[in-house]
Amino acid sequence: MDVVKIIIEYDGTNFFGWQRQKKLRTVQGELERVLKKIFKEVIEINGSGRTDAGVHAYGQVATFETNVPMPLKNLKIALNKNLASDVNIIDLSFKEKGFHARYSAVGKTYVYKVFNSQERNVFTSNYRYHYEYNLDYEAMVKASKLLLGTNDYSSFLASGSSVTNTVRTIEKIELVKENDFISFIYTGDGFLYKMIRIMTALLLEVGNNRISQEEVLETIKNPSRKYTSIVAPSKGLYLKEVYYK
Amino acid sequence: MDVVKIIIEYDGTNFFGWQRQKKLRTVQGELERVLKKIFKEVIEINGSGRTDAGVHAYGQVATFETNVPMPLKNLKIALNKNLASDVNIIDLSFKEKGFHARYSAVGKTYVYKVFNSQERNVFTSNYRYHYEYNLDYEAMVKASKLLLGTNDYSSFLASGSSVTNTVRTIEKIELVKENDFISFIYTGDGFLYKMIRIMTALLLEVGNNRISQEEVLETIKNPSRKYTSIVAPSKGLYLKEVYYK
Repeated sequence: MDVVKIIIEYDGTNFFGWQRQKKLRTVQGELERVLKKIFKEVIEINGSGRTDAGVHAYGQVATFETNVPMPLKNLKIALNKNLASDVNIIDLSFKEKGFHARYSAVGKTYVYKVFNSQERNVFTSNYRYHYEYNLDYEAMVKASKLLLGTNDYSSFLASGSSVTNTVRTIEKIELVKENDFISFIYTGDGFLYKMIRIMTALLLEVGNNRISQEEVLETIKNPSRKYTSIVAPSKGLYLKEVYYK
Repeated sequence: MDVVKIIIEYDGTNFFGWQRQKKLRTVQGELERVLKKIFKEVIEINGSGRTDAGVHAYGQVATFETNVPMPLKNLKIALNKNLASDVNIIDLSFKEKGFHARYSAVGKTYVYKVFNSQERNVFTSNYRYHYEYNLDYEAMVKASKLLLGTNDYSSFLASGSSVTNTVRTIEKIELVKENDFISFIYTGDGFLYKMIRIMTALLLEVGNNRISQEEVLETIKNPSRKYTSIVAPSKGLYLKEVYYK
């Protein structure tokens, strides 16, 4: 059996998220449907993690096992010919036995994109969170540093998750501003359910002067959802890259 | 009666073009529906020109006449609150009697956007023409100069138009390249039906070495559709600006 690693790009707008669901269009469901068509057998794929409805990806990773009777270059062409225009296979490669998109991952980068303006923008309405209030960019950059390190991030864990270990390491948070567009780029060893969306919402509250640097520090030191009740919308979130050893 | 000029931005993906049509969602139809709701009367708007299904706009212009009993700032807010996320009023202003979005226009700028790559891109699939073949950028720039001036552009007129005067002036054609993204920016006193899409298709044929500079010159000097049978898809086209005296 070959182990195949796939790197996938998708526009999450018209998907009910990553995970296979009966009767709903999902990215995993679409990929498995097309793989079945090509290999004439049921192929189950494992993603590096789920993404919610509306969340996008530049580089989601998945693995599957089967015997591949053709060059991967040809398989890529065949897959992309059968996929709709909102999902795209970027790369396929063979991996060693035991390699697993989720369990072998050692880190991830996510980007959260904001459109900060009192005006509307028809071209970003599915691709950025439209935040209409004034933002103090330097205050957000300063607060982002407080969120770095190895911490119990349970302040940023959405309800409904069954995870028990809430300690993670965030190596880097980078803010990039280009006119009205602000991107928040997070790199870490792993992220809790909705963690990036909650963290970005907190940083925006700091930027809008509703939450202080001290309150951000308190959120990290004494975990609670006192200052982190807001979850920024899924449409601003992009899974950018998944790292392996 | 007040004469009001509107500047409108829209994502053409989910519209059946500009012009009002029974039972189909169009930009004019949406604007008139919302104006009727606010003014409690039927208001007919005149656009600077029609755009086809899938064509986008950064700055379409329309005019309408009515008595406006509120500041235009408030009207803009009311209109945008009632419009879907793919159409946006950018600006409203009062104009002199007789001002008309179409008849008073003296020029327009259109942009045609291409994604030039053998790879797919899920985020541009509704917003750029995906051209997979190699392009000689300098050859396209050179050929674009041949299309400038005051000419009979009937080589670039799609069938189905009832226009009789096919002479237009193109003042400027600018090509802008950023990695795999190429934009063709056209400014002139007016454009024939599908002219920009046909012209861009011709320039791409030149870039792909299928049509020579001499053949482009012939297309301008002796109008025929010999070299201009291709119409580039509507999704790459944007009405950028309409000029008035």
